[in-house]
Parts: sequence; C-alpha cells; structure tokens
Amino acid sequence: MLPPKSNFSEWYHEIIQQAQIMDIRYPVKGLYVWFPFGFKLRNLVYGKLKEIMDREHDEVYFPALIPETELGKEGQHIKGFEDEVYWITHGGLDELDVKLALRPTSETAMYPMFKLWIRSHADLPLKVYQVVNVFRYETKHTRPLIRLREITSFKEAHTAHRNYEEAEENVKKAISAYKEFYDSLAIPYMVIKRPEWDKFPGADYTIAFDTIMPDGRTLQIGTVHHLADNFAKTFDIKYETPNGDHAYVHQTCYGISERCIASLISIHGDDVGLVLPFDFAPHQIVIIPILYKGKEELVMSLADRVYETLKGMGFRVVMDTSDDRPGAKYYRWELFGVPIRIEIGPREAESNEVVVSFRDEKVKRKVPAEELTEERIREWGREMHERLRERAYREMVEKIRYFDNLGEIAEWIGKGVALFHLCESLECGEKVEEEAKAGVLGQLVEIPEGIKVSKEGQCIVCGREGKLNAIAKSY
Amino acid sequence: MLPPKSNFSEWYHEIIQQAQIMDIRYPVKGLYVWFPFGFKLRNLVYGKLKEIMDREHDEVYFPALIPETELGKEGQHIKGFEDEVYWITHGGLDELDVKLALRPTSETAMYPMFKLWIRSHADLPLKVYQVVNVFRYETKHTRPLIRLREITSFKEAHTAHRNYEEAEENVKKAISAYKEFYDSLAIPYMVIKRPEWDKFPGADYTIAFDTIMPDGRTLQIGTVHHLADNFAKTFDIKYETPNGDHAYVHQTCYGISERCIASLISIHGDDVGLVLPFDFAPHQIVIIPILYKGKEELVMSLADRVYETLKGMGFRVVMDTSDDRPGAKYYRWELFGVPIRIEIGPREAESNEVVVSFRDEKVKRKVPAEELTEERIREWGREMHERLRERAYREMVEKIRYFDNLGEIAEWIGKGVALFHLCESLECGEKVEEEAKAGVLGQLVEIPEGIKVSKEGQCIVCGREGKLNAIAKSY
Repeated sequence: MLPPKSNFSEWYHEIIQQAQIMDIRYPVKGLYVWFPFGFKLRNLVYGKLKEIMDREHDEVYFPALIPETELGKEGQHIKGFEDEVYWITHGGLDELDVKLALRPTSETAMYPMFKLWIRSHADLPLKVYQVVNVFRYETKHTRPLIRLREITSFKEAHTAHRNYEEAEENVKKAISAYKEFYDSLAIPYMVIKRPEWDKFPGADYTIAFDTIMPDGRTLQIGTVHHLADNFAKTFDIKYETPNGDHAYVHQTCYGISERCIASLISIHGDDVGLVLPFDFAPHQIVIIPILYKGKEELVMSLADRVYETLKGMGFRVVMDTSDDRPGAKYYRWELFGVPIRIEIGPREAESNEVVVSFRDEKVKRKVPAEELTEERIREWGREMHERLRERAYREMVEKIRYFDNLGEIAEWIGKGVALFHLCESLECGEKVEEEAKAGVLGQLVEIPEGIKVSKEGQCIVCGREGKLNAIAKSY
Repeated sequence: MLPPKSNFSEWYHEIIQQAQIMDIRYPVKGLYVWFPFGFKLRNLVYGKLKEIMDREHDEVYFPALIPETELGKEGQHIKGFEDEVYWITHGGLDELDVKLALRPTSETAMYPMFKLWIRSHADLPLKVYQVVNVFRYETKHTRPLIRLREITSFKEAHTAHRNYEEAEENVKKAISAYKEFYDSLAIPYMVIKRPEWDKFPGADYTIAFDTIMPDGRTLQIGTVHHLADNFAKTFDIKYETPNGDHAYVHQTCYGISERCIASLISIHGDDVGLVLPFDFAPHQIVIIPILYKGKEELVMSLADRVYETLKGMGFRVVMDTSDDRPGAKYYRWELFGVPIRIEIGPREAESNEVVVSFRDEKVKRKVPAEELTEERIREWGREMHERLRERAYREMVEKIRYFDNLGEIAEWIGKGVALFHLCESLECGEKVEEEAKAGVLGQLVEIPEGIKVSKEGQCIVCGREGKLNAIAKSY
C-alpha cells in the first residue's frame, strides 16, 4: 500500500521502491540502483528522446574523466561547478600528476575536440549528443531521479554555429524538440528564461523547462543554453568563413536527465500506483483470466487467444495466471501503471467477449473479442494519453496564480507558482525572493494556456516597466 | 591512405582515425572519443548483444561509484584489482570520509544488493546485465578499443543460482550466447579455460574467448566466470531452500567490452579500409551515380528510384552525389566498409540496369534494377557474411600450430598460437612460459575445426598425462 499522494514526499519515496523503479538501499548517499522494471521504463522514455535527437544530431561519446587543466579553463564555468566536482587523485597506489574530474557536464571534455573538428564554415552547424552518466557531489538532501550524486542518464546535446543568430535559431529548435518530448509524455511544462543570476555557468542565457510537482514545488526538467562565443574564446574554436576570415563559433547546449522519469511518475501517478501513458508503459496490456471451477478451459482458451493476438500485434502484453485472487492481481498491475486491463471470466468467454478498463478510469466496458484490433487499441492509447495530458495540464494551471501585491505572494508559495511582473534590476529580484522565501524562476517565454495575464506590466516592487516572471519553491 | 595491413600496428592506429571510429587526440592517455560513425557501428553491434542478453536477462543499472569498504571485502578480488582502481578522494573541496572507487567491474557494487534481492529458491535464478563504463588505471601501452582507461561499453552479466551445477549450466549457456554473438559478427574464436594463475580474481574458474589478430597475437574478446559460492560467502547471499534450510547461492558473471569492435575492425578489414558484415554496417549500401554531360537526368532518375526503393525496404542506404570523381567516391566508401556498392552510369540507366559489387570482392556484375528485391539483397548480405566468416576462420586456423617439442615453440610465437599438451603442474606451465616468452592461454574447451590433434596427450615438459593447451603473445 502507498501513502496517499496528497502526502507527496512520502508517496514518492514509497512508489519508487514499491513500483520497482529504483532500489534506494545502495550503501552510498545519493546513489541508487535501477531495478529491471524501472530500467525498462527508462529505456522506453529515452528511446523517444533519442529518436527526436537523432533527426538532427549525431550520437557520440566523450570520456567521463576531464583533466583539471581543461575543467578550469572557463572561469565562470569552473566557479559554478567547483563545489560539486568529484576529484580522482589516485590510480592504484600512485598519485596522479594531473587530477581528474568526473564529468559534471561535458563542455570542457568536448570543446577542446571541437577546436580540432571545426575548420571551415562547411563544418557548421555541428550538432552532437550523448547519453551518459555525470556526477555531482550533492551536499543537499538527495532523492532518487531528482537529486543524485550519479545522474545515470544525462542526455546532453552540444552544437556549434556560424554566429549568434544561427545559434539562437538552434535554441528555438531545441525548445521545440523538448516540447515534443514532454508532449509525448503528457507532461505539462512552463518555458522560462532564467534570471541572470541563475543561468548556466558560462552561458549567455538559459531557458528552462519547469513542471509543477503535486506539492506545488517546481521541478526543472530540461534546460537549453545559448553559450554565445564564451566557450569558443576560451577553447579557441574558430572557423574559416566563406571569404577567408577566421571567426569564433557560437554554441548552444541542452540537457535532459532522468528527472523526466521523476516527472512522469509524479505527475500522472495516483494513490494506488503508477499511471503510464500507453507508449511508455513496460507492460501496455494485462490480461486477467477469472477462473471458476469447471470453466478453466473455456476461459483460458479465450485468454490465450487474446494474448497471442495482442502479442502478435507487437504490444507489450502480460497475462497473470498466478493463484492470487483477482483483487490482488488488479492491485499489482495498477501499481505498475498498466494502461489497459482485460478481464475474462466464464460469462465473457461464453459470449466471446472481454471486459476492458483503463488505468485512469473506473469504468469497465464489455467488448467483443474480435473488436480488439490493433487500430482500436492504439486509439484507446491515444485517448488515454489525451485524458492524462488534459488532467495534468489543468492541475498545473490550478497551481499557477498571478499577483500584483508583493505581500500576498509568500502565502501562496508552497501551494504553487506565483506570477508577477518584475523589472530587470537585481535589487527588485532580491526583494521578491526575500519576501517570498523562494527563488525567482525567471521570465515566462510563453504564457500557459488558460492563464490570463499579459507579458508586460509594472514591476511588483518598484512600479517600473517589467516582464512577467515566476517564483516558486523548487526541487 | 592506410599503411598495408601487414604492418598491423600502424594500420590499426590509422584506420581507427581515418574511418572515423575514434578520435585519439583527447588530452588524457588511454581515453578516446567515439566519432559519430564509430558510435553508429558500436550501437549496431551492441544492439545485437543486447538482443541476445534480453532473452534470458533483465537489464539493470548499478552505480559507478563503489565504497572502498565494499570493494575490499573479497580478498582475492581486491588483490586482483588494487593496482588499477581509480580512487575518488574529494567531493568539491571536501575530503570524503570513505574513498570511492570508480568501478573496474561491478561484483562489489551488485552483490550487496543481491543479498537483499534474494530471499528464497523462487527468486533463483537471478540473471541481470548492464552496459556501462568501467575504469582501469592502465600503466601499460594503451590502444583505442583494446586497452583503455575508460572502457565505455562494458556489457557485464551477473547471475545467481541454487548450486554449483546450476551455475555451471549457466556458464554453458553464456558460452553459447557469446558464440552466437561472435558468429553473427563472423569473428572466429577459440574457447579456452584459463590456467589457475590467470583466472578472474575471486572466480572458481574462467573461460575466455580469444581471437587471433592479424599479427598473430591473441585478443581476449569475452570471458565467462564460474564464481561458485566465493562471493556469496563474502557478501552473505543466502536463500531459503524448498525444505526450509538456508544455503549460499552459486554465481556466474560474464563480460564483453568494446574489444568486440576492435576484433571486427581488425579481423575483416583490408588494405583499403573497413570491411563490415552487412547487418552491422552503418551504411549497408552506397549508390554512386556516374554523371556524364547531357545524361544527368537519365542517370539521376534511376538512381533516385533505386535509392527510394532500397530505403523503403529499411536498408541503411546512402547516395553519393558529391562532385568527387568516381574513384574518390569508391575509395571513401571502401574505407567505411560499405558492403554493397551500386553504380549507375548512362549505359546502365538506358537499359534499366545497375552495376553491383561487394566490398570483399573485386567482381562487378550487371543486374536489372527490378531484381534489387529485399530478398535478393538480404541474400547478398548472407553470402558476404559467409565469405567473411570462412576467410577469417581459415586465417585463424593458419595461425594455430601444434608442437610436441618445447624447443620449437619460441620461434612460432609472434606468428601465432602454439598448441601443446601440458600437465596440471604450475612448474611445467612456468617452464613453457619461460621458453616461449609468452603466456599460457589455458586449456582448449573445444578444438577449432580443421585442427587435428587430440585433447589428451603427454605433457611437453614432463611427459606425464596432460591436456591440450594454447600459448601466445596477447594484447
């Protein structure tokens, strides 16, 4: 049994284990073990992400170890990471001449090579990505999939372009790609430009994807950085222009970690377990034969036939013929978020029907067995996806509220995200953070549908012209 | 241009770079960057390996960081690895309380969890695998894909069973699985039981797959270890038997690294580049239109049609419409090992024919365009695979020679593998190693076809009863 989802922190802690996503008993803080079921889910989700990336990027792999000399080259970058880098100082019993950092992110592993790879404008744009483990020495409270010392599945893309504008075009493309990815997971998000003081170390600016967790705190589930020529200057990445000059490239990078799985679990799950969109469920359909004495053969004959048919269509289908009572079976497969349940009892078998229900609804419906066509099942999957998306989006919007009075924000924080207008000054930003006891997320790039407020307005602190900003407690 | 393959060491060094497998210019010894093309090849090869593993194993992921306290628990194991472990001593500016090892292999990360996962005989067998990066502080000469400080793609499987015999059954299954994998790559191998003094640290015994490289040195391309209950006793992994007793599990583990790619490149490649089996080539078919003035449209119309048709069949096909001369195009795609080349010139276009040639043959043949069916192309792929396998196997057998005179072995070593009979004594083994200036590989589990010698015979040193052994210089 899970605690109710209204007690989100405990619910999350329990579902991660009970639904066999991760084993949290590994003997080092902040490191967890992916169970087989969790890793299947991870592979399905990352399969989609890779499919999207593969359209315009090449997959590569750069080493996990970065010499101190390279990591330290970009001043802002190293300042941003120096407190959380793991350092390798010894190989066997020897002390290393140059300390090696375990990559916290791969700019400084990749860009010395970009300098060698890029010669001319014809080599641009260069767009690569990798899915790798990265490491952060987290001193804060760690949590599976959310705050980790080993991020096991960091998809990081890195690109180089001829100038600032072409890099900016790519920022937009990356945002579109991430939207497509999260739309496919039915996860709602806000697209927010981080404030100057919270951008990626070394970036010109940072755009983040934030979703809102059930407890009202935001979770950053993706970031896109315009690096301008900051790293190019540090790593001397130049190209020959069509007219023979030499110019620095402009770069972007963007990443998504296993927080995408954390959001999938947290946003859609309910009091009894996981709720997974059809395309990503490790088990898409469960068949539960209801066996009564003397009718076993009749029931199993239909159940076997349905099982073979659905499997033949390529669905991930499982049949539960264990000795458990039907209630225990329902409970088990609900916990694992199986989208479609098919029950077959003697009465159904006699009339060649099955009882179909969906994980996100309580309704049961009788369906003639021959109507279980591939098309029909895909349609059910799409309908469920749409229901999940709508519910999740509605719940997100309910947690967003606009304020034009600074004094009222603090009370809302903790329940959700506060929107307000803010001028560009650091001083006003700090004032809001102080009052709200939370962090400014930044300027909304797009206003979520259903929220009626304009992008421009008077700064909530000083009354000067300002932009629509968001503030919240974050994970 | 590549050096001739007869100069293997230089040829290998060059082909790795020129065929864009890896960039060797990363600024740390023993660490390399996978280029996009190399990583595509890697993904295709590992896709096959995972397909084979997925049949009977669950994929999981265990942390890359292992506390010193766990790594040190099994005495033989830590002794075997202590010289080559990378140690993390600092997180940020803090010194860690317990040093963390970067996994050199994952027994000591996994088995404390196996203790928690395994309760009863019903939990057995437990069979899992992961594909991960592992790290070795190599002080010897490093080489891309062969001797690395970061092995980027280590497929390691770990299993637990009820007793020694069931674990041994699994050793046999693992050997079959690895045979299937290497057969699919058309890579020949010897299956050899390593001598006592060269088994995996902590194992009961070790079976290795060795192939013979073009220069006559062997390359270990896979290992299967029977661990008996050695680790189970160290990590206290017990289960409840059907009659209520508690017993230690017996374990096996087995691994394959990116050396599989090294063997693929080295065994099949030739003086002009890669030669890849059809199923694993990132580009399976290249179409080269030969354009003459006035005939461009005619040629391109057929070329486009063929391209679309083959792509529609799901083949990985590329069309080279660059301005280079045909010779330069041939050269380029030969370097990348494209199995099937289709040339289309004006004469062919007029008669609706194409010229087909295969990467491993010099023959060109005219084929009517409509005969480019999916079935025909798959058949060509299978035929080429068979030719590669036969040639590679013949070349391996030519490098194996039997000796019954100790004095003659030394001269052969360097050209290939020497077989001889050896008793069980360490003394006789050392004597042979001393004479041959090479390492005993161990007892042949199977005798490769075409080699006529019996498994039993008189020890080459002492004349007592002995088993057929192999010795060679190894990578």
